[in-house]
Amino acid sequence: MRMYDIIQKKRDGEALTEAEIRWFIDGYVKGEIPDYQAAALCMAIYFRGMNLEETSALTFAVRDSGERLDFSDIKGLRVDKHSTGGVGDKTSLVVAPIVASLGVKVAKMSGRGLGHTGGTIDKLESIDGFKTDIPVEEFKGIVNDIGIAIVGQNAELAPADKLLYALRDVTATVDSLPLIVSSIMGKKLAADDDCIVLDVKTGSGSFMKTPEKSRELAEWMVEIGKRAGKRMRALITDMDRPLGNAIGNSLEVIEAINTLKGEGPADLTELCIALAAHILELAEKGTYQECEEMAKKAISSGIALQTFANMAKAQGGNAEWILRPENFPKAKYSYTVKAQESGYIVGVDTESYGVASLLLGAGRNTKEDVIDPTAGIYLLAKTGDRVEIGTPIATLYSGKESGFAAAEERLLKATRISSQKPKDEPLILDVVE
Amino acid sequence: MRMYDIIQKKRDGEALTEAEIRWFIDGYVKGEIPDYQAAALCMAIYFRGMNLEETSALTFAVRDSGERLDFSDIKGLRVDKHSTGGVGDKTSLVVAPIVASLGVKVAKMSGRGLGHTGGTIDKLESIDGFKTDIPVEEFKGIVNDIGIAIVGQNAELAPADKLLYALRDVTATVDSLPLIVSSIMGKKLAADDDCIVLDVKTGSGSFMKTPEKSRELAEWMVEIGKRAGKRMRALITDMDRPLGNAIGNSLEVIEAINTLKGEGPADLTELCIALAAHILELAEKGTYQECEEMAKKAISSGIALQTFANMAKAQGGNAEWILRPENFPKAKYSYTVKAQESGYIVGVDTESYGVASLLLGAGRNTKEDVIDPTAGIYLLAKTGDRVEIGTPIATLYSGKESGFAAAEERLLKATRISSQKPKDEPLILDVVE
Repeated sequence: MRMYDIIQKKRDGEALTEAEIRWFIDGYVKGEIPDYQAAALCMAIYFRGMNLEETSALTFAVRDSGERLDFSDIKGLRVDKHSTGGVGDKTSLVVAPIVASLGVKVAKMSGRGLGHTGGTIDKLESIDGFKTDIPVEEFKGIVNDIGIAIVGQNAELAPADKLLYALRDVTATVDSLPLIVSSIMGKKLAADDDCIVLDVKTGSGSFMKTPEKSRELAEWMVEIGKRAGKRMRALITDMDRPLGNAIGNSLEVIEAINTLKGEGPADLTELCIALAAHILELAEKGTYQECEEMAKKAISSGIALQTFANMAKAQGGNAEWILRPENFPKAKYSYTVKAQESGYIVGVDTESYGVASLLLGAGRNTKEDVIDPTAGIYLLAKTGDRVEIGTPIATLYSGKESGFAAAEERLLKATRISSQKPKDEPLILDVVE
Repeated sequence: MRMYDIIQKKRDGEALTEAEIRWFIDGYVKGEIPDYQAAALCMAIYFRGMNLEETSALTFAVRDSGERLDFSDIKGLRVDKHSTGGVGDKTSLVVAPIVASLGVKVAKMSGRGLGHTGGTIDKLESIDGFKTDIPVEEFKGIVNDIGIAIVGQNAELAPADKLLYALRDVTATVDSLPLIVSSIMGKKLAADDDCIVLDVKTGSGSFMKTPEKSRELAEWMVEIGKRAGKRMRALITDMDRPLGNAIGNSLEVIEAINTLKGEGPADLTELCIALAAHILELAEKGTYQECEEMAKKAISSGIALQTFANMAKAQGGNAEWILRPENFPKAKYSYTVKAQESGYIVGVDTESYGVASLLLGAGRNTKEDVIDPTAGIYLLAKTGDRVEIGTPIATLYSGKESGFAAAEERLLKATRISSQKPKDEPLILDVVE
């Protein structure tokens, strides 16, 4: 086989065979296929697409490009929840403890944030003492003991995705359905879960800007997951507004804790209950309605919060911070952003909210950047709310004052205010199973 | 500027600005822009194209990427003829001596062959002692003295093209009109000629497989050449049959000599006279008809052949070989290919003829391959000819017998025979000025 012929074939709109796709991924990971040929292929895929068979073959080749986890010595059904990435998305921190407290196992490997989206690992590390680099045997032991552990992504998992994503990121080939599907699912399938529930974001803060495209992405991921023998489900959820009110690492952990106490924002609570119920239903804990009730009860009884505290303790963290979040340090500086005009907030550019948070120190521009765990944004007004000139709409938090002006400008520009009250849009747009 | 934004802009179908194109070429030549980003851009250009303004800017950026020749101390009008590459195309060896013998200056830098097409430099080096690596001052001296010199391409000319072509060649992005135009014209315009006549090949042995695409290519090159202040013309000529009967280095030189003696094949003679006449007309030597007569007379008087011999001598070659081509060594082995069926030759896959010649040792697969100057094919029957089973259709020449079987198979497969006599197609399809 020659890489040239594979590029040409895709360039001319033909479907690649499984053998060709595997040969490419294998050679690319080994360094035998140069980046420039991989880049040309990615751009040809951007224009020509891939059918479901090709995308499936690419996903499995990515999955098989490195180590595959073996969690067979974890007792019980293993479940995972994956979000395609959003701003202020702390659902994992709520959903995982709920379902773990109800008897399914959560052995979760998560990523760090880069750019405008946060990462679960960065959020957890804002808890005093919390360790995310735990050896795999110890990790499995924690999951067996208390039902849940969340650690950093092992670098050897799906190395093809790491290489390809870095390449796509600098060659304008990220926005391609088959490449997104194979990237997300290639990594997910290298882990060893029985059930996977996907939270596919749609709107300005996500990969897919329209519900139609998001639905297509969800359908392909669900289908490919099923082909790999997983129980699958996907929710399509709105990212035209940030989820909850907190954006930033410790701010989001605190909000997750509040949600586990039953005191969280309505949108975040709604989505977390739904995600948990779908996971529990896939795990055959009952009908969807029964599972929803179980999830709500896990919150009201305090067992879900206690499970989070147990996990924090098992991973070296200070469980007192979970039970009493007033222990989290506050940012050195804060700043109130006020509305510049009167009217209803009719929509926001969520991605810009993420960038504003990054400017305050909550995120990384490069992998080497150090995160300020206290930095971020707390929203005081959201889509649908009425504001007047001077109404505080957000509080900015940061360890340095220098970022406030730029973050405020971003935030105001990203917030559309109009005299017409917008109609209520549902948070969960669709369920794909 | 960021290369990412330039790739994305072209990917989304927008026109790049001159500043963006220059910034890309400049950074790429300096090694500041990596191959993988250049490859992604080339593939985006493949799909989205470039308008005439962009193509013009790209051409001039390629031209300006390295040294530019200064031939102002060559006295008289400098002319060049460039072919987009074909099989058996030895027109330069005939046209250049004709026009030089009539008082225009030919200071030609040519390339070597790679793949199925031959290169003028390889052909000339089959002449005993002929040197093609001549220092530039000496080169200009020869042109001033005898009107013509042909040397190898200076590596510092249009280095962006060298880099880009090597990249396109391995990323399936060669077949793109703006990239072909900027590659050919970028190099041509870095030389210092006053008039350029292009021979744009169309058909199976060339870049452009249809006359329409070839015409578009010709029109763009002529327009861009004019924008650079050159007198331009382009002929669109048929490459659905090899030109003349000889394919291979010394075989082609011998055929060129025969043509300069007035004893060449009709098709080759026709095209060479036409190309010479167009050059002479551009150089204001008279009307087209007058120029055509002058070219014919340069052949019948022997002055064109003598000019070739003078050039050979000035470049260290044995002029006796030019005047008496029976001096050229013969290949060690020969083999006759016979028709396997009866009928008319209705067409041939010219590219396969070129590959067959390469298999015999006449060409290179890689830059390091050594050429057998005596190897090649002499066609005994061409498109339009009637053959019977067993009629010899070609003689193969090689220094080794091992290539004959594969070359014969290629040749027979590439020769279409039918009971219907094909209608005569013109060799020169169009003239663009």
